[in-house]
Amino acid sequence: MIGWPEPMKIKDIGEFGLIDLLARQVPAPSDRVVKGIGDDTAVIRPEQGKLVLMTTDMIIEDVHFSLRYTPLRAVGWKALAVNISDIAAMGGTPAYAVVAVGIPPNMEAGMIEELYSGLGECARIYQTDIVGGDTVRSPGGLIINVALSGWVEPNRVVYRSGACPGDIFMVSGPLGTSAAGLYALNSSCPVVTCDAADEVIQAHLRPWARVKEGLVLGRSGYVTSMNDISDGLASEVLEICRSSGTGCELYADSIPYTGAVAEICRGIGVPPLEWALYGGEDYELVFTVKPEGADVVKAALHEAGCSPEIVGKVVLPDEGCIIVENHRRMALTPGGYDHFRE
Amino acid sequence: MIGWPEPMKIKDIGEFGLIDLLARQVPAPSDRVVKGIGDDTAVIRPEQGKLVLMTTDMIIEDVHFSLRYTPLRAVGWKALAVNISDIAAMGGTPAYAVVAVGIPPNMEAGMIEELYSGLGECARIYQTDIVGGDTVRSPGGLIINVALSGWVEPNRVVYRSGACPGDIFMVSGPLGTSAAGLYALNSSCPVVTCDAADEVIQAHLRPWARVKEGLVLGRSGYVTSMNDISDGLASEVLEICRSSGTGCELYADSIPYTGAVAEICRGIGVPPLEWALYGGEDYELVFTVKPEGADVVKAALHEAGCSPEIVGKVVLPDEGCIIVENHRRMALTPGGYDHFRE
Repeated sequence: MIGWPEPMKIKDIGEFGLIDLLARQVPAPSDRVVKGIGDDTAVIRPEQGKLVLMTTDMIIEDVHFSLRYTPLRAVGWKALAVNISDIAAMGGTPAYAVVAVGIPPNMEAGMIEELYSGLGECARIYQTDIVGGDTVRSPGGLIINVALSGWVEPNRVVYRSGACPGDIFMVSGPLGTSAAGLYALNSSCPVVTCDAADEVIQAHLRPWARVKEGLVLGRSGYVTSMNDISDGLASEVLEICRSSGTGCELYADSIPYTGAVAEICRGIGVPPLEWALYGGEDYELVFTVKPEGADVVKAALHEAGCSPEIVGKVVLPDEGCIIVENHRRMALTPGGYDHFRE
Repeated sequence: MIGWPEPMKIKDIGEFGLIDLLARQVPAPSDRVVKGIGDDTAVIRPEQGKLVLMTTDMIIEDVHFSLRYTPLRAVGWKALAVNISDIAAMGGTPAYAVVAVGIPPNMEAGMIEELYSGLGECARIYQTDIVGGDTVRSPGGLIINVALSGWVEPNRVVYRSGACPGDIFMVSGPLGTSAAGLYALNSSCPVVTCDAADEVIQAHLRPWARVKEGLVLGRSGYVTSMNDISDGLASEVLEICRSSGTGCELYADSIPYTGAVAEICRGIGVPPLEWALYGGEDYELVFTVKPEGADVVKAALHEAGCSPEIVGKVVLPDEGCIIVENHRRMALTPGGYDHFRE
């Protein structure tokens, strides 16, 4: 019988074959890794005099991504990048990751290789070691969990909880791009030019974590609180206020978005502010700055290649959390993505 | 209308409500935790002069456990204990964990609380800090991923790869108990006495990680390689041989199992060796010892409350991996659990 060669399935290569395949996709370990993939645990030489940071994110097929319009390479990139973004939001540097994957046994081995090539590419760019992991069978879709450690100098760490009334709210760059990208990926109607669509789709599929920017902010000495924007600006600002015990006043007209987002929004009649405030997954940083440091911080971020903007200020808790648009004052509500509510 | 009060569902309490609920189930953070649950990452003060260990394990409903016969408290315990066991197998001490859970939105909040109470109980007993995590929606069953870090003194770490021909293979205690427990949980026929069933079911649901024993072995200076027995003795021994580039000779008649396992095996006509070699999930340690240290190591483990046994020896690679039973020499095959093959 003549036919197509059968692609190799995960269930055919077994666990060890799979681990060998994956280990080849990730960068060779750096000097600080004493033992990487292939023992009960990884062994790492810690950085002297620094604090350890640790975070984890789980992403699940058809909840966080759809393979209908997301290349597996992008899924792998994003699974690591979102964790690196959390380290960036503390003013830290990513260091070593463990990756656990739940794989449908009928998935082709080449697909998992592609997933890991995306993880490996992100690890290489952010100088992060993938030092181990776990591979298990999933009875449903693909599941990826990354746990990431990093380092921060003790006097440079920035928490969520340090905002003070009088501080200024800033963002590191334009927002709503990722939401526009998701729209463009999902949409079949050609309301957007190719250039605009390409730009926002790239931002959605391959988000950058603001590590360099987080370091600049941590070192400035002026930044009092910080979050990465995974769930939408509104939701992240409210989290800072909740943790810091403050209120806030956001200036709607100052919230930045790119020309591509404006163009797509015009085409489909969505206000860009909607995506900028509630879209999420932009992975820019939102932070509060002591007023006397605002100019210094802005200049430092410009120098790092960012387009920072002042988007509001921290106020007393009894003033509440509000957003001002065309002189109208409205309550700021999260509106962002809550994984459990409909 | 009169009826039962509706139990609170995950989708009704939202992400923040859920995180608050879970944080209450885990132990209060220790002094080394600068920032625990509730920021972008955890912040930890590292232990001076020690190496960092890092591991992760994902467990998935209906692949690794069934809620038909596993209490959620036991699922939580086990999710952390299997990671602690990996740290133990390096000669290390567990320190801090991040936990990610994928939760069906219709699951009752009380069930997740029970899961975390099991995680918290295990964390408390092994003095491990749960410092953060992630909660996401699962479109299928429950998914739990634990990533765990620990410490080890640089000259005490034990790898998989250090076995030398002439070394002796030992195990820290009886095997096959967990497999017998799984059988007893699944079985409805009363072939076993209550006492025997209770003992093996406990071993299956609430396995102990051999941290104290791993420390004793790492400190002895005689242990050349080590694994925890998650996949069955045969599979773990073969892994040590593969990593070390050696062969092995196992003595089938020396492989230990408890009276309860013997009783259950007699009742159902399964040879106990089957479960001891291939059953897995016993989380005892298997390790190789320099011959001159065998007595010292055995005595030290006895003192730590274990029942160690010599089960074989390391041989030259060209002698292969064999098992000797009643003077018959047979090839040793993994037979253990490979997550992807049928």
